[in-house]
Amino acid sequence: MYTIGIDLGGTNIAVGLCDESLNIKDKISAPTGASRAPEMIVKDMAALAKKLIDRNHISGDDVAYVGIATPGTVDPRAGVVEYNNNIRMKNFPIVETFRKYMPVPKVYVENDANAAALGEALVGSGRGSDSLIMITLGTGVGGGIVIDGRIFSGSVNTSGAELGHTVIVAGGRQCTCGRRGCLEAYASATALTAITEEKMHELELKGIPSLLFEEQSREGRVSARTAFNAAARGDKYASALIEDYIGYLAEGVTNMINIFQPKILCIGGGVSGEGENLIRPLEERVSRDQYTRDSKKKTKVAVATLGNDAGIIGAAALGNTSSRQK
Amino acid sequence: MYTIGIDLGGTNIAVGLCDESLNIKDKISAPTGASRAPEMIVKDMAALAKKLIDRNHISGDDVAYVGIATPGTVDPRAGVVEYNNNIRMKNFPIVETFRKYMPVPKVYVENDANAAALGEALVGSGRGSDSLIMITLGTGVGGGIVIDGRIFSGSVNTSGAELGHTVIVAGGRQCTCGRRGCLEAYASATALTAITEEKMHELELKGIPSLLFEEQSREGRVSARTAFNAAARGDKYASALIEDYIGYLAEGVTNMINIFQPKILCIGGGVSGEGENLIRPLEERVSRDQYTRDSKKKTKVAVATLGNDAGIIGAAALGNTSSRQK
Repeated sequence: MYTIGIDLGGTNIAVGLCDESLNIKDKISAPTGASRAPEMIVKDMAALAKKLIDRNHISGDDVAYVGIATPGTVDPRAGVVEYNNNIRMKNFPIVETFRKYMPVPKVYVENDANAAALGEALVGSGRGSDSLIMITLGTGVGGGIVIDGRIFSGSVNTSGAELGHTVIVAGGRQCTCGRRGCLEAYASATALTAITEEKMHELELKGIPSLLFEEQSREGRVSARTAFNAAARGDKYASALIEDYIGYLAEGVTNMINIFQPKILCIGGGVSGEGENLIRPLEERVSRDQYTRDSKKKTKVAVATLGNDAGIIGAAALGNTSSRQK
Repeated sequence: MYTIGIDLGGTNIAVGLCDESLNIKDKISAPTGASRAPEMIVKDMAALAKKLIDRNHISGDDVAYVGIATPGTVDPRAGVVEYNNNIRMKNFPIVETFRKYMPVPKVYVENDANAAALGEALVGSGRGSDSLIMITLGTGVGGGIVIDGRIFSGSVNTSGAELGHTVIVAGGRQCTCGRRGCLEAYASATALTAITEEKMHELELKGIPSLLFEEQSREGRVSARTAFNAAARGDKYASALIEDYIGYLAEGVTNMINIFQPKILCIGGGVSGEGENLIRPLEERVSRDQYTRDSKKKTKVAVATLGNDAGIIGAAALGNTSSRQK
């Protein structure tokens, strides 16, 4: 049997056909057209899934279920997207709508950060672990929690696991959520870009040269990579900035480890592309700071390994009996 | 049928006989004698339990199981206290030892903060909720987490839920765990006492009068109550101090709500004795700050209601099929 995982993003719809070991046999994608009516988007999702079935010469009966990963607040039990900022879904019955266009027996839906964490736990950085926390460093800071092989996304409602919206610096930098000092305001790619720009502005005013300016010219803009690149070339201002950045990230990561004691905590999202330059100093800090002193019981910190496929794979795993929510 | 809950504390052993609705029918206690060999302490626990059975004219067959709540790191599956600072247990097989002195069919053990949270969820402040977080403000800041009616205490090892050891002020006040700026360093009774003493020292140096000094004389010392009492009498320095204290506590509480979205978050421990003076401003802050905007889905913040009985009741509930860990 196969399963189909659909990663509905703000820019693209990516659909993958997975085997029972969650290997992607084939995948296909198309622009989301996020400003369209949600029903049109879902219709395209179903058309892409059918195309994938056809071109792999299998039949609908060979597909056990379809899983959908979407941004926003999701109620997986009801099959409803409660709220989605980019794709303009509000209390939208995505499962029911999808089945109108593709009558498979079972369709599941989950928040994309949660699905990605499940994918990482099953076949990514956490392969073989039934407990994993994934922190995604992108536009914001996302979180996904897997406990006992299942997604945990909050008790009263399913918009929990907002790991980016935990304050690590009371009274600190303004966060989009209204509070000050959230992890997201220090550790997202957006925050790192802003902090780099602030530093460059300060250096410019003082007339201090720095490789940060060279990197900016080379890239054509300031990004989350600018300071990492300048630091790798030995710039002292960039190095201090990256050390601070990793220090704040370590506070958030250590907090989550002290709360959850997962087997593995993986870092995904754009900034995780820095690989060892990010993870080595991060793991050093976290290993020193975490509450558990027993080295055999410490949480491993690693880079997420599934990259852009995490959403597809996590979605394709949503119907696994062992990973399904109660 | 009855169950017996034993709350093993650093000072006293408290044993309660509970009915199936978790009402305490009778309880008994004796000094722990914490410096003795652990086996002697367990022998006394069994003797107290037997005394309770005898004086209630029931037989051992009427007792479904015994539950033990103990401080320290516990492995409930193995029935072992891995480490306990005050009672000097180290990898101590408490369940096996207890059954040597009282051969009941089933004996369970849990960390006391976890047991208390289970008690609060079942019959205390969370009566009827299957998700609850309890934060205990005492010598330290303890945490207990109940998800789906079961205790969650970490995945890799069972020393998770260290909610007090999450940094809310990066680089802030020194914590006993080695990090700086943990919730415990701002919100424990010990921290509040220290912060009050620091403020009084500052006022004294400047020769500024304050009701804090009157309260100190009345109590004979500075405690976590001093500033609350002076604030209630209108002292502006005490009021500002309490506002700050509740502000920091609110950061930690809101963080936990954004992660777990529990139905209820209850505050226990000595400082919770301040009741409405603590909870009203705390709930106001938390309600404003939490990520969920939907008022129907917001977490309720409340004072724990079982007081010193939470440990006994939680221990007496450990064998409930629905609350037992996998």
